[in-house]
Amino acid sequence: METFFNPSSVAIVGATEKPGSLPGIILKNLLDMGFQGKIYPVNPKYKTIFGLRCFPSILDIPNEVALTVIAIPASSVLEVLQQQAQKRIHHAIIISAGFREMGAEGMKMEEEIRQVSIKHDIRILGPNCLGVLDNYTNFTTSFLSWERVSTPKKGSLSILSQSGAFAIALLDLATQEGLGIAKMVNYGNRIDVGESALLPFLRDDVHTKVIAIYMESVDHGRRFIEAAKSCSKEKPIVALKVGKGAAGIAAAKSHTGAIAGNYEIYKAAFLKSGIIEANGLEEFIDGVKVLSMQKPPKGNRMLIVTNGGGFGVIVADYCSENGLDVPPPSRQLKEKLKGEFSSFYVVNNPVDLTGSACDKDYYTALHTCMVESDEYDAAIIIPLMAPQGMTEKVVDFISDTMKRSGKPTIICTVGGAFTMKVKQLFEDREFPVYPSPERSARAMAMLLRRRILQEGAKEVITRSHGVAKNDINKRTSNKE
Amino acid sequence: METFFNPSSVAIVGATEKPGSLPGIILKNLLDMGFQGKIYPVNPKYKTIFGLRCFPSILDIPNEVALTVIAIPASSVLEVLQQQAQKRIHHAIIISAGFREMGAEGMKMEEEIRQVSIKHDIRILGPNCLGVLDNYTNFTTSFLSWERVSTPKKGSLSILSQSGAFAIALLDLATQEGLGIAKMVNYGNRIDVGESALLPFLRDDVHTKVIAIYMESVDHGRRFIEAAKSCSKEKPIVALKVGKGAAGIAAAKSHTGAIAGNYEIYKAAFLKSGIIEANGLEEFIDGVKVLSMQKPPKGNRMLIVTNGGGFGVIVADYCSENGLDVPPPSRQLKEKLKGEFSSFYVVNNPVDLTGSACDKDYYTALHTCMVESDEYDAAIIIPLMAPQGMTEKVVDFISDTMKRSGKPTIICTVGGAFTMKVKQLFEDREFPVYPSPERSARAMAMLLRRRILQEGAKEVITRSHGVAKNDINKRTSNKE
Repeated sequence: METFFNPSSVAIVGATEKPGSLPGIILKNLLDMGFQGKIYPVNPKYKTIFGLRCFPSILDIPNEVALTVIAIPASSVLEVLQQQAQKRIHHAIIISAGFREMGAEGMKMEEEIRQVSIKHDIRILGPNCLGVLDNYTNFTTSFLSWERVSTPKKGSLSILSQSGAFAIALLDLATQEGLGIAKMVNYGNRIDVGESALLPFLRDDVHTKVIAIYMESVDHGRRFIEAAKSCSKEKPIVALKVGKGAAGIAAAKSHTGAIAGNYEIYKAAFLKSGIIEANGLEEFIDGVKVLSMQKPPKGNRMLIVTNGGGFGVIVADYCSENGLDVPPPSRQLKEKLKGEFSSFYVVNNPVDLTGSACDKDYYTALHTCMVESDEYDAAIIIPLMAPQGMTEKVVDFISDTMKRSGKPTIICTVGGAFTMKVKQLFEDREFPVYPSPERSARAMAMLLRRRILQEGAKEVITRSHGVAKNDINKRTSNKE
Repeated sequence: METFFNPSSVAIVGATEKPGSLPGIILKNLLDMGFQGKIYPVNPKYKTIFGLRCFPSILDIPNEVALTVIAIPASSVLEVLQQQAQKRIHHAIIISAGFREMGAEGMKMEEEIRQVSIKHDIRILGPNCLGVLDNYTNFTTSFLSWERVSTPKKGSLSILSQSGAFAIALLDLATQEGLGIAKMVNYGNRIDVGESALLPFLRDDVHTKVIAIYMESVDHGRRFIEAAKSCSKEKPIVALKVGKGAAGIAAAKSHTGAIAGNYEIYKAAFLKSGIIEANGLEEFIDGVKVLSMQKPPKGNRMLIVTNGGGFGVIVADYCSENGLDVPPPSRQLKEKLKGEFSSFYVVNNPVDLTGSACDKDYYTALHTCMVESDEYDAAIIIPLMAPQGMTEKVVDFISDTMKRSGKPTIICTVGGAFTMKVKQLFEDREFPVYPSPERSARAMAMLLRRRILQEGAKEVITRSHGVAKNDINKRTSNKE
């Protein structure tokens, strides 16, 4: 599998310098990324391309080749594969579209390719895909212009996606949310390499800490569950399953030829293999973000602290809806807080510091409730930046105190340019920020879900008291 | 009611030039906005404030006064009200906090104020509120610094909110989404003027086209339903009800002293009075945006057009989940489309123009399906901007064609800076853009809901065929 991400040498079939040509853009992106392996452009029309020697065919390359990248019309792909069999190149990434997703004729071509690959032991990624991006080996087969798509920074998120558009959107969103990328793989029609082969590889990849999967279907039911189970023991996996209803199933078939199948079966498989399922694109990226930045809470008792009472109310609502408890502070803790604050602050849960709050009030509330006391397992904090008493200093007050508590934290805040600056400061410190109460509560529920999948609901509930086992399991499992 | 939004003269009680003082900031904001009515600062300590003559008390103002704005400590408010009774000033906005939300003593002060106001026929907004912003009369009582909060542009959205923080967040979000504001009212503890009095006023306000209400509770059940029913006949009302579960109900009580009550009763009241309910802050602003920009569809048959197949699949999923139909094109329409496109474009619903799409393909698909044919009632269009063939020109191709069709349109697109620029261009043309498939489908469902509330589900379904009446009514009503 390593060869797909870090080939010692790669042949780019059909490479040109012409603007707009896919193999040409792939070659250019690869050079721009600074990939260190050997690169062989292949095209009978040219002697050199971007200063590299160009070969008439794969067979003319004098050295060994580890991987081919094929981005030429579908009807010519088979011939290239046969040449590569002859040269004993055991890996190919087929970017070209025009196969199974196009109906009977395309399906026939795809089947021929599959037969050749089996016969000659060639592992194939694709066809109908973007292929690979590896931010540590600087290898990529992407044919997108990085002027349009954010260049993702190095990081610990790896993405597996059947859809190319989705893979790109996730790269873009991850970058916007300050998340770095380890690897991205888009396998499109997936005639060979898919989730079941890639998950064990990502489990052992030192750079990958969190895995995001977009799926219309899986490659092999049982192998997938085994691979995901083994992988999710080490690293959280978040999945977005699409093609759920009749309209979506039909659309998936037209898209990658995927048989999206019965959604209930997928839900059961996710549960069995420890996968956290996301409902929608935003929950997908929100879950990936919180799992990348914070550790799962030990129980479900949430403290809410805010300077905007209405936001406290709605976060409390969405906590309840997502299986998170919002217990009032003990009498003792209440007294302690009252001693610290102005009489018109609301000492309860949510702690409402009101529009009069200043930065340090957040320190006081959090230090008292989360560091000195053990009544809460995690905090959702809503610092609204509009009131006069709030400055950027609130970021350090909150993040330092919550780091000292060792308890997971989610920030919810809403606003314009100044708020966006504060968001950035929080996320630089690995505290995830969400722009709405509902997304904040759902992200916390996904973080708790990770703990429940690792330890079982019983253990988590025993710790946090007061919530019936079945209840929490049900409420934090999928909400469909 | 007009006096609260356009007073001929206003007294600002407690005004100073000291930075950080609430009455001072209110006065400064009012001067900065360019309010044209007479302004009388009131404070025994000063002769002039910001160049205006200052009066020792209200009673010393030699002219008539239409409205007082009171932002002094709670314990001094009653005295001011008694003075204003003597001077026959019949309107007051009480910004001050420290009343019912603080428990028994505060409740006693609030009740005294209420008695005085009844006895002397003084209409009161507040206490514990931000008061008013009117973008057409330039009157405001907001005490927020406009450096922190986006200054909202003139427009047609009016906001009613029990929570000040929420009102401000909505102003910020609306501005970010390109929506202009007519009026904002935050009434906090609401001892007198609330939704039931304000809705008839907004119904008749020429500048208001869409109304957004944040509520923890309502002022008067029956009067509210009557007022909302009459208002929603003219203008769409979107409501966000918070304080639904036990934790949220407790939080609402601490916040504005509101008794949030049984959520089921609210749901029934919303249905009865034609209010569209939002689930969460994002659905709230999303619904307001689509209702501000687009007309409700005549039926529920959606066309999806995209150049990113995966996005087509997931939008189809969320359409199904939200009561929107995604029927395949007729054989005739399919043949027509096939004649127009490359063989590898997927001619179905979604129409998948693939990563090879160029701008004009959107024109072709939409002109054929939405202008020349009547098989669809609305379109959800997903132009992803990463592929090379896509440029800004796609905005005019899509918006011109959809305007010609006369059918409502929602745009879904995801990406970085270039995508954000395209979003802006679409929204300049009044086509709402959403950053995720799920939000796009839910916004379309809210737009359809408006039609169903106006006409009844039966009429809408008869037009769009194929969906059982109860089914669509259930699916597009609240999803809780």
